[in-house]
Amino acid sequence: MACDWFDEHRDTLDGAVTASESRKFWSAYPEVPSGRVYGETAKDDGLAAWKSRLGTRFDLGQPGTASWVSAETSPYGIDMGVQYPRADLDTLLPAVASASDAWRQADIETRVGVCLEILHRLNRRSFELAFSVMHTTGQGFMMAFQAGGPHAQDRGLEAVAYAWREMTRCPQRAMWSKRVSKTETVTLEKTWRVVPRGIAVNVGCSTFPTWNGYPGIFASLATGNAVVVKPHPGAVLPLAITVEIARDVLAEAGFDPNVVTLACDDFDAPIAQDLVVRPEVGIVDFTGGNAFGDWVEANARQARVYTEKAGVNAIILDGTDDLRGTTGNIAFSLCLFSGQMCTTPQNIFIPADGIDTPEGPVSFDDAAAAIVKAVDWFVSDPARAAEVLGAIQSEATRDRIAEARTRGGTIVRDSTEIDNDRFPEARTATPLIMQVDVADEAAWKREAFGPIVYIVKTDNTAESISLAADTARAKGALTAAVWSRSDEVLDRAADALTAAGVATSCNLTGQIWVNQSAAFSDFHVSGANPAGNATLCDAAFVVDRFRFVASRVPVPAAVEAAD
Amino acid sequence: MACDWFDEHRDTLDGAVTASESRKFWSAYPEVPSGRVYGETAKDDGLAAWKSRLGTRFDLGQPGTASWVSAETSPYGIDMGVQYPRADLDTLLPAVASASDAWRQADIETRVGVCLEILHRLNRRSFELAFSVMHTTGQGFMMAFQAGGPHAQDRGLEAVAYAWREMTRCPQRAMWSKRVSKTETVTLEKTWRVVPRGIAVNVGCSTFPTWNGYPGIFASLATGNAVVVKPHPGAVLPLAITVEIARDVLAEAGFDPNVVTLACDDFDAPIAQDLVVRPEVGIVDFTGGNAFGDWVEANARQARVYTEKAGVNAIILDGTDDLRGTTGNIAFSLCLFSGQMCTTPQNIFIPADGIDTPEGPVSFDDAAAAIVKAVDWFVSDPARAAEVLGAIQSEATRDRIAEARTRGGTIVRDSTEIDNDRFPEARTATPLIMQVDVADEAAWKREAFGPIVYIVKTDNTAESISLAADTARAKGALTAAVWSRSDEVLDRAADALTAAGVATSCNLTGQIWVNQSAAFSDFHVSGANPAGNATLCDAAFVVDRFRFVASRVPVPAAVEAAD
Repeated sequence: MACDWFDEHRDTLDGAVTASESRKFWSAYPEVPSGRVYGETAKDDGLAAWKSRLGTRFDLGQPGTASWVSAETSPYGIDMGVQYPRADLDTLLPAVASASDAWRQADIETRVGVCLEILHRLNRRSFELAFSVMHTTGQGFMMAFQAGGPHAQDRGLEAVAYAWREMTRCPQRAMWSKRVSKTETVTLEKTWRVVPRGIAVNVGCSTFPTWNGYPGIFASLATGNAVVVKPHPGAVLPLAITVEIARDVLAEAGFDPNVVTLACDDFDAPIAQDLVVRPEVGIVDFTGGNAFGDWVEANARQARVYTEKAGVNAIILDGTDDLRGTTGNIAFSLCLFSGQMCTTPQNIFIPADGIDTPEGPVSFDDAAAAIVKAVDWFVSDPARAAEVLGAIQSEATRDRIAEARTRGGTIVRDSTEIDNDRFPEARTATPLIMQVDVADEAAWKREAFGPIVYIVKTDNTAESISLAADTARAKGALTAAVWSRSDEVLDRAADALTAAGVATSCNLTGQIWVNQSAAFSDFHVSGANPAGNATLCDAAFVVDRFRFVASRVPVPAAVEAAD
Repeated sequence: MACDWFDEHRDTLDGAVTASESRKFWSAYPEVPSGRVYGETAKDDGLAAWKSRLGTRFDLGQPGTASWVSAETSPYGIDMGVQYPRADLDTLLPAVASASDAWRQADIETRVGVCLEILHRLNRRSFELAFSVMHTTGQGFMMAFQAGGPHAQDRGLEAVAYAWREMTRCPQRAMWSKRVSKTETVTLEKTWRVVPRGIAVNVGCSTFPTWNGYPGIFASLATGNAVVVKPHPGAVLPLAITVEIARDVLAEAGFDPNVVTLACDDFDAPIAQDLVVRPEVGIVDFTGGNAFGDWVEANARQARVYTEKAGVNAIILDGTDDLRGTTGNIAFSLCLFSGQMCTTPQNIFIPADGIDTPEGPVSFDDAAAAIVKAVDWFVSDPARAAEVLGAIQSEATRDRIAEARTRGGTIVRDSTEIDNDRFPEARTATPLIMQVDVADEAAWKREAFGPIVYIVKTDNTAESISLAADTARAKGALTAAVWSRSDEVLDRAADALTAAGVATSCNLTGQIWVNQSAAFSDFHVSGANPAGNATLCDAAFVVDRFRFVASRVPVPAAVEAAD
C-alpha cells in the first residue's frame, strides 16, 4: 500500500485534537464558498457534477443490489430522478462482515489516514455536495455549502480526532513488572488490540444528512467498524456521494470497499427497522424524529445506539439592553432554514408584566409585537428570505403548520409563502407565530418541527425558567436562549437549564445565533435529556465503539533486562 | 470547609493517572498485610472491629429505614447476626435526590478530594474489611485482605483517576473568537458544567463485593452522582463499612451524607428489581449472575447500565516447555477461591492426539492426568488448601457441584471437602474435574460457577481455539489461557480470542495466574461479549456518567482584548 495519508494529514489531525481540547475556534475546512479557496471553476464544476447525476442510476458496484429506488424530490421543485441501490440485506451484510476483518486488523494509523483522506476529498467536492444538500433538504445555497460541506467535514474530523485520541490512550504494548517476593520479579509483556463492536449502521436524516451523519460514520470507521449508511429516502444524494468517495479511498488503500456501503429504501418499503436489529449490527447512529428514534433505542438492543432526536427549545425573555438587536437576533434564529433545525427555538417565554429595558419596562404585547415585526422585516425582501429560509423539506412539515393554526392559541403572525424567483415551484413557508397561555400545553409543550413558534405568557421569569427546564426534561431540548439585564437571572437560568441538559446562550446579539453549533467547541445535543442519548462529539461518542482487549505473555528475566 | 483532601492526595491521583496511561505495574495501597505497613496492632484492631459488629444493628442514621434485615451467614460457619437497614425507597430516594444538588454543583476538585479521602480511610481499615470480606464471601484471609482491601481500593482509585481525567479534558471555560467578516470578530465566553446523570445504584455481588463494587461507586461519585449501594444480601458488611466511611467523609466536607446510602434487602423480599427501574435512577452498576444481569440490561431502560456478569473461560493446551510448571499453574488457577472467580477457567481444551513437549508428545490422557495430579497435590495439604481455596460462598454453588456430576461426562477427579482446623463448620469443596466430549455441549458449554472444571477432548488445537472463541461469543468469557510451543499457534489464538473480547494469557508459569487482573493495567471484562457490557476500568466506564453542558455569552470587544 503506497498511501501515506496519515502523515500527509497529520497536521490536520493534530489541529483537531488541540482544538477539541481547548474548545477555541478552529476549523480545518474553509467555510467560504470562494473560488480563491476551492478553485475558480469549483462552483461551476460542482453544479455540473450535481446535474450529471440527475436522472441516472447511482451504481456503487455493491453486492446484493436487489432493485433500484428513487424517492427524492427537490423541495425547490426540481425533478431529481436519481436511482439508488436497494439492498438485499442477506447478501449485503455478509459481504460487509467479510470486508470488516482486514479493516479491524489494520493499524490505527492506517484507518485514521483513510478517514482523513476521505474527509479531504469530500472537502474538495464541497460544491457538488452543496447542490446535493440544497436540493434534498431545502436549505439555501450558503447554508447547504457551509453546513453540508466544510462544517459537516469539521464534525467528521472532530469524530476522527476523538477516535484517534481514545485509541492511542492505551499503549499498544507495555511491560508490566511486579516484585512478587524479595528475590523474584514477574514480568508480563502485554499487547492491546482495538476490537471494534461490529457493523455500524448510520440512519440519516432529511434536513442535515452530512452534518448529522459524518460524526457517527467517521467515529465508527476510525475505530475499526464497517459502516452501512442508510439515508433518509428523501435525502440520499449527499450521502451516496460520500459513500462513493469513501469506497474509492478504501479501494486505493487496498481494502475491500464494502467497509462502507449504502443501503437505500423508499417510503413504501422502509428497511431501517429490519436493518438496525440485525444480529451483525453492533452500532446504530440515528438522527431523526423522536418516534422512530425512541423505537430504535427500545428495539436495537443488540447494538450500542446513539441517537440525535429533537426537542422543544426555549427562549426566555426577561430583559435586554437592546430590544431591536435582540428581536433581530431572535428573528434570524426563527427564520434560518425555516425553523427546520433541531436547534431552532420553538417557545418564547415572556412574563405577563413585560420585560426590562434601559428605556423602562416593555409590555408583554409590545415585546411580542417587536418579535413579529423583526420576523416581518426579515422576510420582507424575497431574495433574502429565499436564501435564509430556503424551502420546506417535506410535505409533512408544511401540513404541520396548517395543523398548528388550529391546535390552540392565537395567530399573531401567520405563515406565508415566499416568492422564489429562481425556483418558482419551491415549497416555502415563513414562520407561524402563535400566542398561547401557559395552560395551553397541548399547543406548546410538544415538538412542532418547522417554522412554528409559540409566544408563551408566563407569570414571571422564574416560571419561564422552570417551564423551559421542565419541558427539556420531559420532551427534550437542545438549546435555550436567555436575554436578561440581571446577572443573577442569567446565572439562575444557566444553572437550571444546563442541569436539564440544555446548551444555554445568553444575551446573544449580532452575528451569532442560538441555532449555531461549532465543531471542536460546542457539544451538539447533550445526551442528558430526551432530545438524544449522545453528543456530537465527546469522548462518550467514540469510546464505546471499540474495546481494548489484551494478550499477555511472561517475559524471561534476561529479555526483560534488555527491554 | 477546611478539607484540602484534593491537595493532600494529589500525588496518589497523579500516580494513578500516569499508571492507567502507561499500563505498567503500579499500586497506591500496599497489598502486604504487614504490621510494618499498616501498624503493628492493625490486624488485631481490625479483628476486634469486625467482631464488635457481630450481632449488632448497623445503623447509618439514614432516612426511610423501614425495618432491619439480617441474611448474612459466614461460609466459615460463624454466626454473624448483623442487622442492616431495609429502606423504604419512597422516603430514601427523595432524600438522596435532595442531597445530590450540592454534590453536583461542587467543584470537580472537591468531589475528587472527597473520593480520595474515602479511599484513604478505607485503606487504613483494610484489616477490618478483610475479615468482613472473608466471612461473607468465603475467601481465605490473604485473598480477602488483598482483593477485598488494597486491590479493591486500587480499582476504586483507578475509576477516580479516569473520572478526573475525563472531567478535566474539557476546560471549564474558554474564549471562542471567530472572524465573521473582514472587520468583525465575534467572541463568546463559554462555560462548561459537568452534569451528572442522576442517582447511581450499585448492585453488589456475593464473592467480591468491594473489588467489583468500588469502580462503579467511585466513578459515579466522582462525576457528581449520588450512589445507592445495594449489596448482595449475603455479603453486606464490607459495603456497609464502606458506606459508613463515605458518609463520614461527606459530612466532614459539609455535604449531606445521603450522597452515599445503603439499601439492603434479604432473600425473601429482594428490592433490586424495584430499585433499578425507578425513574430517579440514572445509572446502574451490576455485578452478578447472567440471569439477573440480563434482566437489568433489558429492563432498567431509563438508566445507563454497566454489567459485569460471568462467562465460560477456557484453557487451550497445545504444548508446553514445562508440563509440570504448566499444570501447577493451571491447578492453582482452578483452586484459587474454589473457582468462585469470574476469571477462573472452566473448560480445558486438549487435542485428542495430545500435546507437544520437549520430551515428545504427551497423550491426551496423560495431559489430563497431569492436571488432576497437580490439583491433588495442591489440596493435599489441608492448611494450604484452606487458605487458597477458602470456603464456598453459597449453598447454590455446592449444589451445582452435585448437579455437575450427573450432567454429562466422566468424573476424573471428584470434589471433596477440606478439613479446616480453624473453622470446622466451613462449607468447602475442592475442584470437580469432568472429562467430556466436544459433542456434550449441555455439560461444558454453559457457565458452571464454582469449582467445576471440564476437560474437553478436541480434534486439534484449531478446533480448541474456535470452540473457545465461539463459546465466548455465545456465552461470554473474561479470560483465556493458552499454552503452546508454537508462536504461530499463540498468535492465532490471541487474534481469535481477543476478537471475541477475551483477555488472553499465554504460557503462564510461576507466580502469575490467568485469574489475576491488576488495576491500572488489566481491563477486567471486555464489554465485547455476553460476560458484561462494561470494563473495569476504561474511559467508557466513566464518560457516560456525566455530560458537559455549556452556557455561552458574547464578550464585548474591549473585554475580549483584555482576556
